[in-house]
Amino acid sequence: MSKLVIVGTVAFDAVETPFGKTDKILGGSASYIGLSASHFDVDSAIVSVVGGDFPQDYLDLFSKRSIDISSIEMIKEGKTFFWSGRYHNDMNTRDTLATELNVLENFQPIVPESYKEAKVLVLGNLHPIVQSSVLDQMKDASTLVILDTMNFWMDNTLDDLLDVIKRVDVITINDEEARQLTGEYSLVAAAKKIHTMGPDYVVIKKGEHGALLFNGTNIFSAPALPLESVFDPTGAGDTFAGGFAGFLAQTENITFENMKKAVVYGSTLASFCVEKFGTERLESLKPDEVRSRLMAFKALTQFEIKLTP
Amino acid sequence: MSKLVIVGTVAFDAVETPFGKTDKILGGSASYIGLSASHFDVDSAIVSVVGGDFPQDYLDLFSKRSIDISSIEMIKEGKTFFWSGRYHNDMNTRDTLATELNVLENFQPIVPESYKEAKVLVLGNLHPIVQSSVLDQMKDASTLVILDTMNFWMDNTLDDLLDVIKRVDVITINDEEARQLTGEYSLVAAAKKIHTMGPDYVVIKKGEHGALLFNGTNIFSAPALPLESVFDPTGAGDTFAGGFAGFLAQTENITFENMKKAVVYGSTLASFCVEKFGTERLESLKPDEVRSRLMAFKALTQFEIKLTP
Repeated sequence: MSKLVIVGTVAFDAVETPFGKTDKILGGSASYIGLSASHFDVDSAIVSVVGGDFPQDYLDLFSKRSIDISSIEMIKEGKTFFWSGRYHNDMNTRDTLATELNVLENFQPIVPESYKEAKVLVLGNLHPIVQSSVLDQMKDASTLVILDTMNFWMDNTLDDLLDVIKRVDVITINDEEARQLTGEYSLVAAAKKIHTMGPDYVVIKKGEHGALLFNGTNIFSAPALPLESVFDPTGAGDTFAGGFAGFLAQTENITFENMKKAVVYGSTLASFCVEKFGTERLESLKPDEVRSRLMAFKALTQFEIKLTP
Repeated sequence: MSKLVIVGTVAFDAVETPFGKTDKILGGSASYIGLSASHFDVDSAIVSVVGGDFPQDYLDLFSKRSIDISSIEMIKEGKTFFWSGRYHNDMNTRDTLATELNVLENFQPIVPESYKEAKVLVLGNLHPIVQSSVLDQMKDASTLVILDTMNFWMDNTLDDLLDVIKRVDVITINDEEARQLTGEYSLVAAAKKIHTMGPDYVVIKKGEHGALLFNGTNIFSAPALPLESVFDPTGAGDTFAGGFAGFLAQTENITFENMKKAVVYGSTLASFCVEKFGTERLESLKPDEVRSRLMAFKALTQFEIKLTP
């Protein structure tokens, strides 16, 4: 089985939506990416850090899904990274109520020896200097590197971000961030500029409008599965990235055609994520549910028009 | 050849975009619908009204595309409907600078006898009472009726609008309008409510994010073709409706599967519309350009994931 290494946050989230609110629940980019990728036949490991307040139950949850947690460092005297947010009625915009970095502040990820030649590396949202330090540890130039980031780093550490963007194969980014990073309104023009910054593949996430995959002049568009209600959008982007990365690691096939399928898997998994609070839906998710939603995804997008070139 | 009758406005538009501005050029819902539908093998007629100031050249343009213009009434002493607008930098929002109804104010469309049993009727954006009066003239219950409308009628003549919505097979509406009409944020929930108002088929247009087709629990999602630059979005929705209707009239097949293809044709034609000011690009459009863009559309959306039910 091929290896997938995920570097990102393992955190507590507290979320308010129009449907209700949670206490501190499991959150963090690496948690969503890992749980999503665990639906594929891969050996995956999470590299992260938590505080002494982090429950063993959550670690067991990862282990039960065959995720290697030996590189989730626990700093007993520290507290786990905490984020809290409130979604507006449209479920597309939110206010951050609290961000407590805690143990994340001095996080220096160490990639385990056995994962330094992993097939796929996902760099979840973190300080770009930390992301670069992970790249320095990798040993096989053929590792597919997928980077996720957000506007915060564009605002505050743009040069560091550009340094890491230069070194990755795939970037996943949302539409507003793509526009901010490039100064281009058109997503086609934005992707073109991002290509010149480094990544051969650019995935632009558009929330309820789906995702676009760019590779030079090749473009693939996947809708989000239309849902009657979105319960909690937290983690949907990371769940997408986890499904995308998990599928690519499992299939070991880095072509545009296969990456299209990876986008479909990512979108499918993300459609489950938003149905319940936090990681709840991902935890209970069964393979036949994934399969039947993939069929819904096909029905949603596929049509028969015969054309001769 | 099957017949398609289009009732809507034939107008002058003056448009400002970040790329430039136009003098009075050909506009109006029926103009875009008709020019778009003229790319299919159908006998189509436009039912509309213009003033004495309307140039013969524009009428000739329709005739050259084999559109029957004998029901475009000309009121010599009147002036043609005029609309003027300015697009913001995002090209998704605009300010209306002028709306002069002129001859449209007393427009009483008369469907020609030979079109009263048309295969497809498109009711372009007009006062809902005028749209109803067209329905009263039709003679064959099997005519597929496609209604387009906008928020103005929801704000001002909601009851009349609901009366006409009750009588149509397909409604095309944009996302914000669907939300306004139903009070539902989720487009799935909105479409469900619109079904209960009458239409078996609901098409929700999402501009740069494409379109959704609903028929009960069946959903189809078509992206918009990602474009590097949108020059002038005016008429894109009507061009979509024209391609959609033209394809359905040509194929005479009212099934969900065929309606999916109609959405793809509509989206493809709309992608040309926005490349130049007004109807300019539609006028010069060649069949092989349409075919090659349909192939681009397939490449953009089609993927191969084999699943057994």
